[in-house]
Amino acid sequence: MQTQNKYIYLVIVVCHIILYCTSITEQSVLRFEAPHPFEPQSAINLSPPPPVVFVTKTFTSQIDHFSFNPYLGSFRVRYLINDTYYQPGSPILFYTGNEGRIEAFANNTLIMWQMAPVINAALVFVEHRYYGNSMPFGDHSMDNASTLAYLTAEQALADFAYFLTNLKYLEPRLVAKRSPVIAIGGSYGGMLSAWMRQKYPHLVQGALASSAPVLQFINVTSCYAFSAAVSNAFTKASPNCSANIRKSWSAIDRTAASGQSGLLKLSKIFATCSPLTSKSDVNGLKAWIVSAYVTAAMVNYPYPASFLLPLPAWPVASICRPISSVASVSDESNNDDISLLSAVSAGLNRYYYNYTGGVACLNLTVDPSSATLDDRGWGAQSCNEMVMPDSCANGITDMLQPTGDFDLEAYTASCLSQFGIRPRPNWVMTQFAGAVDPIACSNIFYANGDLDPWAPGGVKTSPNPSCPAELMKNAAHHLDLRAADARDPPDVARIRKLQWQAVQRWCKDFHQGVANANIDHAVWNRHL
Amino acid sequence: MQTQNKYIYLVIVVCHIILYCTSITEQSVLRFEAPHPFEPQSAINLSPPPPVVFVTKTFTSQIDHFSFNPYLGSFRVRYLINDTYYQPGSPILFYTGNEGRIEAFANNTLIMWQMAPVINAALVFVEHRYYGNSMPFGDHSMDNASTLAYLTAEQALADFAYFLTNLKYLEPRLVAKRSPVIAIGGSYGGMLSAWMRQKYPHLVQGALASSAPVLQFINVTSCYAFSAAVSNAFTKASPNCSANIRKSWSAIDRTAASGQSGLLKLSKIFATCSPLTSKSDVNGLKAWIVSAYVTAAMVNYPYPASFLLPLPAWPVASICRPISSVASVSDESNNDDISLLSAVSAGLNRYYYNYTGGVACLNLTVDPSSATLDDRGWGAQSCNEMVMPDSCANGITDMLQPTGDFDLEAYTASCLSQFGIRPRPNWVMTQFAGAVDPIACSNIFYANGDLDPWAPGGVKTSPNPSCPAELMKNAAHHLDLRAADARDPPDVARIRKLQWQAVQRWCKDFHQGVANANIDHAVWNRHL
Repeated sequence: MQTQNKYIYLVIVVCHIILYCTSITEQSVLRFEAPHPFEPQSAINLSPPPPVVFVTKTFTSQIDHFSFNPYLGSFRVRYLINDTYYQPGSPILFYTGNEGRIEAFANNTLIMWQMAPVINAALVFVEHRYYGNSMPFGDHSMDNASTLAYLTAEQALADFAYFLTNLKYLEPRLVAKRSPVIAIGGSYGGMLSAWMRQKYPHLVQGALASSAPVLQFINVTSCYAFSAAVSNAFTKASPNCSANIRKSWSAIDRTAASGQSGLLKLSKIFATCSPLTSKSDVNGLKAWIVSAYVTAAMVNYPYPASFLLPLPAWPVASICRPISSVASVSDESNNDDISLLSAVSAGLNRYYYNYTGGVACLNLTVDPSSATLDDRGWGAQSCNEMVMPDSCANGITDMLQPTGDFDLEAYTASCLSQFGIRPRPNWVMTQFAGAVDPIACSNIFYANGDLDPWAPGGVKTSPNPSCPAELMKNAAHHLDLRAADARDPPDVARIRKLQWQAVQRWCKDFHQGVANANIDHAVWNRHL
Repeated sequence: MQTQNKYIYLVIVVCHIILYCTSITEQSVLRFEAPHPFEPQSAINLSPPPPVVFVTKTFTSQIDHFSFNPYLGSFRVRYLINDTYYQPGSPILFYTGNEGRIEAFANNTLIMWQMAPVINAALVFVEHRYYGNSMPFGDHSMDNASTLAYLTAEQALADFAYFLTNLKYLEPRLVAKRSPVIAIGGSYGGMLSAWMRQKYPHLVQGALASSAPVLQFINVTSCYAFSAAVSNAFTKASPNCSANIRKSWSAIDRTAASGQSGLLKLSKIFATCSPLTSKSDVNGLKAWIVSAYVTAAMVNYPYPASFLLPLPAWPVASICRPISSVASVSDESNNDDISLLSAVSAGLNRYYYNYTGGVACLNLTVDPSSATLDDRGWGAQSCNEMVMPDSCANGITDMLQPTGDFDLEAYTASCLSQFGIRPRPNWVMTQFAGAVDPIACSNIFYANGDLDPWAPGGVKTSPNPSCPAELMKNAAHHLDLRAADARDPPDVARIRKLQWQAVQRWCKDFHQGVANANIDHAVWNRHL
């Protein structure tokens, strides 16, 4: 869904809120009484989410929050805000933007839009630096290692912290200091939500960290776990499907091995836009197919959706339909190879890259799943601190084309040649493992889907009762953040209820904690 | 006490520890059973601390942890370690070095040396970057704004985090991953301890944050509170003393106002090394005297000590002895002025800058309290993020020479001209206020002395029961970190007992938390 040009940027002036705010006395501010006490709600309103409307704004942030380098200035970070439902003291739902244009997350985190009217919440989505239009060095941001140097999670979190600290000046109507802020994010955005709560608990009351692979790092989660999870999703759809896919790689190799005619045959079967002419082209085809399976597993939602690309309901089962119908192929017969590969091609064409039709051929130079997000910065980010080895396969615990082990040395060399950046692969765990600490963790809700390739790198067991870790049955990548829907698997509804209760508990605790503690809470608000 | 050249650097090889460590099976590591279960102790051993002996080592750290600037390299950070008492699984007492040579803190935090033998703790003191010998750019570290850019608390904490993460490689005998680490620090070091626990709870199990003015920031604590606390310490010693000091400033002015003969008279009374010849010299004299009172109040210990300079027991009462003996001076009589100022001079000479004798005259260009610490970097640090306005006085709620309000604009101009650094005065609260958050705070013990000028900027009320905030009666700046001593005020003994219980609870929780949680705790240790 190309969303960036679709929105009407409305300035919604809610006069009665302004009037209400101006009537708040200094005393009530210091007492932290919520003028509109937060009333717990038992269930999320399942009615369709209201239209996604917001005002687009920017704030000025430091390029480097953690040094005082006099030659580094500031830049503008974009954020989207909707205060239609907001009343002073009620919650602020705060999406911690991840690798992409912020509009994509506003449009695909519809649960926030369903929650907001029920609890009078303000909605804020802050763009991650180096994505969308939040570029520290403008058009030169991606130029080289020096301009890319400040593309880190720590700096992005500091942007968020600076933003929240100044929220009441930026948005004086919000009276933010009496409002609990709930961080919400999915995938890398979920990691940022969890980390935001851990590092800035005075600014963020709790976090819904959805499908957040905070443990997908070297020596913590096996590099092979991701591929096994991709395969499990396919096996769950049809055991025969994953078995046939496992066999398809050697079928491709055998077909390719018969010289130019074999390559031509392969090109024809897969309807490639350019004919395959070399072994490297064949490897490119395989890599493209692997990536298609990964994407399908990630967005394996129970209804048609367009998060990364337009796909049918349960895309994995759809892709599997033709593939699993090829019964018990032998590894030896070329005829079987062709029927198997034709089935693979059919599955991917009909239910993946050409689902909405009109695609004449398979263009291997294009990843159809990267159109929405515009995540160009991720390459650099995964070469500095976000080293998350996930693409190992052995063809045994998974159905994918076998690879070697993760090779940090080769990875480092590639990062140096691509970006001039030397990875520090252990730094993220040093910096952020506190988010899963059994004693210190508080108010982080970890949820993962059992169909999601990222689940093995997520938090599988609660660090403590304040930080639940829930596995959603029959759910793919951050399904819980999408609009609550009648077609959701029952377990997703169960988890949504728990999340909803957690959000309400955090909000209540915020108001009570603030009221009960003897300390003058203005302490960390007065400095604003 | 000039300590840096006094120590014998011993390498103590405790063979049975090595043997023990090598016998630990993988299973016991994963189960996190402490081979030597931590046994709670009811009281601190009050016998004198063992001799301060340690090995001096260094580790390599990033100059900038938070960027991937390819032109910034690494540098060596110094640390001191003593593992004489250590047994695998027992605690590591970790001093978070502050503004000075690390030896000064090893020598003045003797409570750590008293604790260590009782609980078999290892002792580690890590030097703060830009102090002592831990210089990111060697001799050029203080050259200009560019070289000073990385002198921040965040970077220092990241050094500590990196150090702790690698401890088992640096010190393989420690088997650190099964040892709870307790952060300990006083003053800015106490701020770092509290912040270390907040930001890196997976690395630091708890923190004793002693006399840590984590709230001494703009709009959070009044700039006048510090001077009032200085004066309270003097009033407590003798109400007449602070009353007379309050009058002494105008006595100085009146004496100086009678022209060169007045200046000569003043020079003689105060025995200045160079005669006072201008109003600016007179202001210099006053500033020097204010600084003396501040220092005396900070190190107003119940026995002779040499933390910042050699002083008698209860130096404030000592200084006050001559001053308070001048009864009810009138503001009008020059004779009274001279007897008052002579008493002030006598108090400062006998009990402050010339206590150990041999100082022939008062050198106004030297601050006798800065000899031990070598805190040159603090000037720059207080000009970037550590903007802690504390030197306002009004002569009403305090006894000091009245000043104006804190002037951020003038302060900024001075920082720019001195260092080329523009302060970000609100950043520290944005970054670190989580350490006093009522819901998220855990395992931080805040202690302040009621005689300490820094106490008003400290945490006065517990954020929650897990983070007590205790006020020690009759105690000056981080007296609790000095050796437990029979001459300590009773309240200090009371607080030490609470701290001791907290440390033991944290250690027990560490082993229990680790054992009880279902999560594989190797998660954030395995990546080491």
